[in-house]
Amino acid sequence: MQSNLRSLTTRTPQEGFDLAVTLSQMGVLVTQPSEEIRELLRPVYSTNADSLIAVSQVIATNFQTVAAANNYWRSSCSRPHIGWR
Amino acid sequence: MQSNLRSLTTRTPQEGFDLAVTLSQMGVLVTQPSEEIRELLRPVYSTNADSLIAVSQVIATNFQTVAAANNYWRSSCSRPHIGWR
Amino acid sequence: MQSNLRSLTTRTPQEGFDLAVTLSQMGVLVTQPSEEIRELLRPVYSTNADSLIAVSQVIATNFQTVAAANNYWRSSCSRPHIGWR
Amino acid sequence: MQSNLRSLTTRTPQEGFDLAVTLSQMGVLVTQPSEEIRELLRPVYSTNADSLIAVSQVIATNFQTVAAANNYWRSSCSRPHIGWR
Amino acid sequence: MQSNLRSLTTRTPQEGFDLAVTLSQMGVLVTQPSEEIRELLRPVYSTNADSLIAVSQVIATNFQTVAAANNYWRSSCSRPHIGWR
Amino acid sequence: MQSNLRSLTTRTPQEGFDLAVTLSQMGVLVTQPSEEIRELLRPVYSTNADSLIAVSQVIATNFQTVAAANNYWRSSCSRPHIGWR
Repeated sequence: MQSNLRSLTTRTPQEGFDLAVTLSQMGVLVTQPSEEIRELLRPVYSTNADSLIAVSQVIATNFQTVAAANNYWRSSCSRPHIGWR
Repeated sequence: MQSNLRSLTTRTPQEGFDLAVTLSQMGVLVTQPSEEIRELLRPVYSTNADSLIAVSQVIATNFQTVAAANNYWRSSCSRPHIGWR
Repeated sequence: MQSNLRSLTTRTPQEGFDLAVTLSQMGVLVTQPSEEIRELLRPVYSTNADSLIAVSQVIATNFQTVAAANNYWRSSCSRPHIGWR
Repeated sequence: MQSNLRSLTTRTPQEGFDLAVTLSQMGVLVTQPSEEIRELLRPVYSTNADSLIAVSQVIATNFQTVAAANNYWRSSCSRPHIGWR
Repeated sequence: MQSNLRSLTTRTPQEGFDLAVTLSQMGVLVTQPSEEIRELLRPVYSTNADSLIAVSQVIATNFQTVAAANNYWRSSCSRPHIGWR
Repeated sequence: MQSNLRSLTTRTPQEGFDLAVTLSQMGVLVTQPSEEIRELLRPVYSTNADSLIAVSQVIATNFQTVAAANNYWRSSCSRPHIGWR
């Protein structure tokens, strides 16, 4: 599998969050390219509370990047508060 | 459960903090979609000090994002100190 | 206990640090609402070096947010260096 | 092996992600210069879910840096949303 | 012991790093106020490689804050590169 | 040993990365000043995958600071894309 990240911009925060999840998976994929081994590991970390928290930490870090890239999905850079006041 | 994150802007810091908590939960939810398993894990991490600290770390990271998105709930970008001097 | 975070702005860096501590505790509180259980856990993490370091990491992350919210308690945005040159 | 990091700017987000991976490896390389030992460790961390998550965390942190360096691969600083609206 | 953090601005990067160390210690101090217990823990974490790395992580996070507060000790905001070109 | 950090500005990204490594070591040094003990710990963490990943995380955090301090080694602040378009 070869990832091809074309843009960090998304239409909505939800799509941005989904991209953050993808980026987090890409970080694992690059270190363990075998889908077979990754699938073997899934039941381990997906049922371990601390692993799930650590995954959420990675996603949060990537979401910071994606959110900044999208200027936090605000309407405009010069008038940042428009739309939520 | 399907999350639908529509905006990062909130009216108050408290609502922003609540959103950070939601984002942190979304990071777990996406990895472990089964509510049943998540409920089984809750008593494990909620009574473990290190797990609770790790959860607070994830929330802190997401709160950074939400706070920046809301320009830290300051009154104005051009006069950032208004209201707290 | 219901937190009510009204503002991220503080008068001094010390008050900002105290707020960062509060934010870190809020992240624990939201996951473990029982004060009784939290009090049971206190002697565990407060006498464990690695737990204390992890707590300090959470506070540092929240302090980043609070410090940015207060423009690092500099005098002015347009003349950021006033006061420390 | 001697790294020579010449620039943080890349043409695409994918190349930026690849650079983030390289930076993460450089952080290991500087501490363990022996390629032989690093190769011995690879099967350990590449089959351990928590290690893989931790690697993804490092990459996410470095990707924040690279993405900011490239202004998130947006078209222009003054008109940040061009291209994704 | 009562900390009193008056300013994040320092004259030099070295003083800024020292302040980051102080902030990291403050994060421990607020959770374990007893100097006696902290002194008992010192030989534990100061001879444990992973604890030392974790301490360095906290300091790095706080140094980010202090460095930003000091505008990275650059000469001027409008001409950021003066002095290092 | 007494560190003396004079500036965060470097000529190249590689020198910036090297400075990030130095900052990471300084964070350890301040907690464990004994070179003898640090040398004893080196074979422990340098042959442990998780320790190496954690070290790389600290370096990544410090590299964020150094890269920002150098405006990511871009040519100019007002024309950030010059040189890589």
